[in-house]
Amino acid sequence: MVIALQISSRELEHTKKYPNEKVISLGIGDTTEPLPEVITSAMSDFTLALSTHEGYRGYGAEQGNKTLRKAIAETFYRDLAVNDTEVFVSDGAQCDISRLQAYIDSSVIIGQAGDFQDGTGKYQNIEYMECGPQNHFFPDLSKTPKTDVIFFCSPHNPTGHAASREQLEHLVEFARENGSIIVYDSAYAAYITDGSPRSIYEIPGAKEVAIEVSSFSKLAGFTGVRLGWTVVPHELLFSNGFPVINDFNRIVCTCFNGASNVAQAGGLACLSPEGYKAMLSVVGYYMENANILVDTFASLGLKVYGGVNAPYVWVHFPGSSSWDRFNEILEKTHIITVPGSGFGPCGEEFIRVSAFGRRESVLEASARLKDTFLP
Amino acid sequence: MVIALQISSRELEHTKKYPNEKVISLGIGDTTEPLPEVITSAMSDFTLALSTHEGYRGYGAEQGNKTLRKAIAETFYRDLAVNDTEVFVSDGAQCDISRLQAYIDSSVIIGQAGDFQDGTGKYQNIEYMECGPQNHFFPDLSKTPKTDVIFFCSPHNPTGHAASREQLEHLVEFARENGSIIVYDSAYAAYITDGSPRSIYEIPGAKEVAIEVSSFSKLAGFTGVRLGWTVVPHELLFSNGFPVINDFNRIVCTCFNGASNVAQAGGLACLSPEGYKAMLSVVGYYMENANILVDTFASLGLKVYGGVNAPYVWVHFPGSSSWDRFNEILEKTHIITVPGSGFGPCGEEFIRVSAFGRRESVLEASARLKDTFLP
Repeated sequence: MVIALQISSRELEHTKKYPNEKVISLGIGDTTEPLPEVITSAMSDFTLALSTHEGYRGYGAEQGNKTLRKAIAETFYRDLAVNDTEVFVSDGAQCDISRLQAYIDSSVIIGQAGDFQDGTGKYQNIEYMECGPQNHFFPDLSKTPKTDVIFFCSPHNPTGHAASREQLEHLVEFARENGSIIVYDSAYAAYITDGSPRSIYEIPGAKEVAIEVSSFSKLAGFTGVRLGWTVVPHELLFSNGFPVINDFNRIVCTCFNGASNVAQAGGLACLSPEGYKAMLSVVGYYMENANILVDTFASLGLKVYGGVNAPYVWVHFPGSSSWDRFNEILEKTHIITVPGSGFGPCGEEFIRVSAFGRRESVLEASARLKDTFLP
Repeated sequence: MVIALQISSRELEHTKKYPNEKVISLGIGDTTEPLPEVITSAMSDFTLALSTHEGYRGYGAEQGNKTLRKAIAETFYRDLAVNDTEVFVSDGAQCDISRLQAYIDSSVIIGQAGDFQDGTGKYQNIEYMECGPQNHFFPDLSKTPKTDVIFFCSPHNPTGHAASREQLEHLVEFARENGSIIVYDSAYAAYITDGSPRSIYEIPGAKEVAIEVSSFSKLAGFTGVRLGWTVVPHELLFSNGFPVINDFNRIVCTCFNGASNVAQAGGLACLSPEGYKAMLSVVGYYMENANILVDTFASLGLKVYGGVNAPYVWVHFPGSSSWDRFNEILEKTHIITVPGSGFGPCGEEFIRVSAFGRRESVLEASARLKDTFLP
């Protein structure tokens, strides 16, 4: 939130200073490519049918349309023994995470995070797991205190790192030892290209300790259409033996009336054989952008992370302030990025570059960067 | 929730006992009529355009599309000085109310309601305002303790009562005296036919004490499409002088990523001159159903409330248990209603009859009721 406002304000200043220069944004983590027609035509058909007695639908199940829950279970968890009754359709990962009360800001709102401590810039009841190249983007769990909930995102925004199988095995083991619940955000799983796990449930024993939150937003370009899902396994129990799924079901039924039925019709079309292929070809387009950006920054002699399993490229400028690098790039090339410090203190020497965007903009940005910074 | 399951289970028993009888449901508070084509064709056009570069949209503003916010302010609050910046588009009233932490169940989940007290069936930190024919469906405020938040719904589900101007003036005065915030649910405002206020902001001074939550669900048959809105006036301040709107904006931006853009396109079409007319003609259809049901129960010599300003008819059976009356009606006429006690202890002698449904079912129900119960 704050970082987005700061960047907008810098962009505004910049366009006033250089009214004739075309600014290219590699800052935004939002999809830009049109949806495949096989998906929009299914949504359109569903919508038009709402004007007929046969096709009209009122309230749906709060947990989502049964057919869609089944399709999600079969598409993403086929060999992982996830049942459709464990899949809860949502209006997007952020909304469900807020219902899970795991995100820092949400925890602060409902008063679970403890006091904000001026000295450290951290909330008292939240342990921050520092991740960077020095630890292969995975925390040293031997030094991590026990918490009730562990929020973990892979592939990770902003670093673009996908946790390896070995790292996730450590995470699951750690949660099992401490009786913690992992809230695993796999919203970028479709961008994984190197065989890293796409679901926490690929790790044996994970169903007893992990909730997985995911989304059609970056998978299918549904950032505006709004659709996601959360998996709560039957095996996951509170320390008193009560199934978490029963509690989660109660939260969903009380605080939520289901995702839009039009969005759900779109989600179902995404998971048809033709829709799935078309949807992944858009993911492939963004990953070609990522590839171009990785090559560009690497050619400038910089150490580059991410971009292989995620649409984010995380560029290291050792010893630099990330706002200084942001400002230099903007000033010299008219390209917007995101200063890493906006994501937390670990991001200080980094900038995040987003691969979401039209190909011609990415190519133009690449040319400007090379023209300006090539040694 | 619980009442819906109990009714389903009774219905199942009944259909096993009478496999050849056709059950008519007057129990469900869900829309049944197809959406006008002017609305679905706008949604379909928006959806198909998502497959083009010009029409594609990613994340929208968390607060909703500016054009829709303006249209809501102009359509429903034209003479009430509500600005579009005070209108927050939601995915439905229930979701926003849960964000407002006002509904009992949600309060219980986040631990604000205090302990459940077995003796009274009430939560410790919630004051229950008893409303029935004895007090013209409006609480005796001289006996009502001060609370931080007053949740008030008009027209009211299940009683169908719309608060009068005088009643609302008392409510606003009471909130102003006590420094309380009213959360006013006006989701059924379009059903008002007798000139009762359709918005709390028709009452002078209300903008300083009231949030209004509303919805396209019952207004436009969007129960499955999911769209609503909440008005938070700039004038509404916490006791420390901070504007509530700033806090609400933060909650919306943190816990919510905006309503589906397809639903928002539908909402905008609802508020075009042609869409508005078509939408209200569906409301009129349900109110004709309500009229038939009011006449039917009145002809049986019963005292009937509601049905004039809401699609719910609240039938009084003095001295009766509401489950007994539910069972008798089901047994003798194969019609499903809702026992009033499912809404709380004040509903004990009542049943709720819903006017949502096909005309032919309502007429058939009316005939069965008269055939069976006419003296």
